[in-house]
Amino acid sequence: MPANPSLLVRHPTLLLTLSLRRFSLSSPSRPSPTFTLLTAYCCSSSSTANSNDNARSGRSGSLSSIPAHDFVQKIDVNPPKGTRDFPPEDMRLRNWLFNHFREVSQMFAFEEVDFPVLESEALFIRKAGEEIRDQLYCFEDRGNRRVALRPELTPSLARLVIQKGKSLSLPLKWFAVGQCWRYERMTRGRRREHYQWNMDIIGVPDVTAEAELISSIVTFFKRIGITASDVGFKVSSRKVLQEVLRCYSIPNELFGKVCIIIDKIEKLPIDEIKKELRSAELSDEAIEELLQVLSVKSLAKLEEKLGAAGEAVSDLQQLFSLAEKFGYSEWIQFDASVVRGLAYYTGIVFEGFDREGKLRAICGGGRYDRLLSTFGGEDIPACGFGFGDAVILELLKEKGLIPEVGQQVENIVCALDTDLQGAAASVATILREKGQSVDLVLENKPLKWVFKRAARINARRLILVGSSEWEKGEVSVKNLSSGEQYQIEVDRLE
Amino acid sequence: MPANPSLLVRHPTLLLTLSLRRFSLSSPSRPSPTFTLLTAYCCSSSSTANSNDNARSGRSGSLSSIPAHDFVQKIDVNPPKGTRDFPPEDMRLRNWLFNHFREVSQMFAFEEVDFPVLESEALFIRKAGEEIRDQLYCFEDRGNRRVALRPELTPSLARLVIQKGKSLSLPLKWFAVGQCWRYERMTRGRRREHYQWNMDIIGVPDVTAEAELISSIVTFFKRIGITASDVGFKVSSRKVLQEVLRCYSIPNELFGKVCIIIDKIEKLPIDEIKKELRSAELSDEAIEELLQVLSVKSLAKLEEKLGAAGEAVSDLQQLFSLAEKFGYSEWIQFDASVVRGLAYYTGIVFEGFDREGKLRAICGGGRYDRLLSTFGGEDIPACGFGFGDAVILELLKEKGLIPEVGQQVENIVCALDTDLQGAAASVATILREKGQSVDLVLENKPLKWVFKRAARINARRLILVGSSEWEKGEVSVKNLSSGEQYQIEVDRLE
Repeated sequence: MPANPSLLVRHPTLLLTLSLRRFSLSSPSRPSPTFTLLTAYCCSSSSTANSNDNARSGRSGSLSSIPAHDFVQKIDVNPPKGTRDFPPEDMRLRNWLFNHFREVSQMFAFEEVDFPVLESEALFIRKAGEEIRDQLYCFEDRGNRRVALRPELTPSLARLVIQKGKSLSLPLKWFAVGQCWRYERMTRGRRREHYQWNMDIIGVPDVTAEAELISSIVTFFKRIGITASDVGFKVSSRKVLQEVLRCYSIPNELFGKVCIIIDKIEKLPIDEIKKELRSAELSDEAIEELLQVLSVKSLAKLEEKLGAAGEAVSDLQQLFSLAEKFGYSEWIQFDASVVRGLAYYTGIVFEGFDREGKLRAICGGGRYDRLLSTFGGEDIPACGFGFGDAVILELLKEKGLIPEVGQQVENIVCALDTDLQGAAASVATILREKGQSVDLVLENKPLKWVFKRAARINARRLILVGSSEWEKGEVSVKNLSSGEQYQIEVDRLE
Repeated sequence: MPANPSLLVRHPTLLLTLSLRRFSLSSPSRPSPTFTLLTAYCCSSSSTANSNDNARSGRSGSLSSIPAHDFVQKIDVNPPKGTRDFPPEDMRLRNWLFNHFREVSQMFAFEEVDFPVLESEALFIRKAGEEIRDQLYCFEDRGNRRVALRPELTPSLARLVIQKGKSLSLPLKWFAVGQCWRYERMTRGRRREHYQWNMDIIGVPDVTAEAELISSIVTFFKRIGITASDVGFKVSSRKVLQEVLRCYSIPNELFGKVCIIIDKIEKLPIDEIKKELRSAELSDEAIEELLQVLSVKSLAKLEEKLGAAGEAVSDLQQLFSLAEKFGYSEWIQFDASVVRGLAYYTGIVFEGFDREGKLRAICGGGRYDRLLSTFGGEDIPACGFGFGDAVILELLKEKGLIPEVGQQVENIVCALDTDLQGAAASVATILREKGQSVDLVLENKPLKWVFKRAARINARRLILVGSSEWEKGEVSVKNLSSGEQYQIEVDRLE
């Protein structure tokens, strides 16, 4: 299905001038505003290049004398629509977030795994009408194979589990932090790529597994300063729906499809939902009963409706009882309307939501005991969740909880004149061999510049290599927080 | 250029049976050998699913009663050709390697960055005949735009630097560890995707920058146990070639193209190289002179050939002098034949090689002072290197230096009967709140099984939750290395 072409109109972006250098001698291209803007970069004389300068020259003109290519290309300096660059400040934040994902996963004794970001399209094609399928970022490769950038991690995990077969010792507790793609309209906290933290437990049929997964997400929230008054989990079970459908003799095959329709209940008008359910061959009576059950918000009420004997009620009761023992009761609530948008869930489903109701679901997961057989493997009970990097960052912004993560460097080492550049290199090597981080100043710069840089990189101390000290095998040290200054033999630097 | 179709023939792979479940009642599909193989997974009764079992049943039959989909798909359980899964044991090794990349980069005060793995194709299209261009993993997306999985990181870095413009404080010292793609024949240590560690210095025209980059790679090698007798760096400068071409009045525009031809000198017969150079409009005399200069292996000899005045010789002399001060002289050697296969290099180029000569280049880099202007930006002096994850792992295997990196977990917590599952959850939570890692046994399992699992995950101690101890608020602890056993109040667990 082709995407809406209107999505593809580009924002006005910084398109740089196109000129064929080989013709530029006779017809020099006029510098665009971009060129002017960038002139500030060229802080050393040797980088002030001029594309018309073909004269043989010394060091200062050397840049223009070796063309790497014979033409200038017109490029868009922005990343492709819906994707992101991570300059250092954004990368520090991403690392901060991902480190919490990893540390929590390891605290729960999960092992990290990864899969190809490019998979066979067939792995993601399901027939249940999921949003995720319509948004598949798919291509034909140079070998005419249908491939797709993964929209989620779970099918790859299932593929690997089937492939590894007997060699795996169950249960598996696996986590991954991987990039996922979807080709869709972009809104707040929704791009064409995002990173997703997944934790999955393969081989445990008991609800203890779901309880453990939710515990790990709660642990993550607490670590980053999110409380139970900021975020909650809506929990239900697909067995609730299944028990209703069974009463009306709805064929099992329709189950996934019905779940996908129900999942849209907050996005579409109720009449639209009913229409879709009718076209899925549900009777009006069944639809009314289904919608009534979906509005139930307490387990006691659900038990009244469905009776205490079924698995839906008993699974949920067990989960709520375990939540108390794990210590996160205040975080979770029963809500029959939660079904999640992936066709493969079969039991408990849950999603994390912000209590102010401003954002989309923060995370979601559930049990998917039958996914492996849809790929031709033997089923193994399994459950897991996906937790994106986009909505949580929106929430942290809302709550003022984005941390300040600056660069941290132990030393900045600077030669006081060009002849001492080698000496400064020796000092840097000595410190690095002791495990210390060193920003080595690679050019001859005024001290004012060096102090400015030291402040920007949060250097702990400045080490100056001057000729009179160096003759004695010493350097000058300035502790940049206390202001203390002293000279010391290089070998005694700690 | 379409890939050779013969590359695309699949190995015989594990293709699983295709059956439409809706028809399986009347015509059950025969289990393939794969099914038999996988039966061993189903260690708990509730996972022995049977797709023909539609009877209402209790927990043990529950899996078969909720179909997530209405059909079984035939999937290839292997990752797409030329790509890799990372099961836990491989992921641990990958993390070990990447952590060294990151720690070394940070020790040199480089900041981490990242870019989209999917970029506009135009960013990678250069006209110089590079291998990397012919191997571009490119597609048309759903919006009919030409996109490509990045074959390298440097063009994205250049794009971001142009985009950020004035807001950046030079010099930048940036590193990245990112996945790169190429559509090509696969050989040892060469797949269709690999991860590449890049370090780049933007804004420093002096050779100190290249010297610093090589120092960081040497530091990395030392950390992982590789010595100067295992690995060396061949170093040259593209200015050597340029000075020769200048003598023969070869136009600057041909420079990149000539470098790409020269880079193939060890892969193609010399006559083929000469033919390609002739078709690039070089005279026979120029070709002979070029090939003679390329065979030079000492700086003194080079100085004889080119004279001492040019930049080629003085840059290289400065680099070798700095290498001594950095302390890695024994790692580097001059070799005029090194030019590297990317069109954009303009000055010093280097590559890391195994001294036994068994493997392809381990890493490579150089100065690319003119890359930004090829994209329409203002040039800034820059240099960097790329270091793949494939060849280094081959080398570590050759040298027996692959580390054993097992899972490490502090505690394994197990309830001695099902009723105590909640109590075990409480114990796990208490330990995790103290920052400890806990593998919580989620099912009722025999002790023998628990000890086996504890050994596999390298648990430091086993905590058993039994009813008589739990009544007193205590648990049993077994230190798994010393064998020591004791009972302790839960709150006193450290």
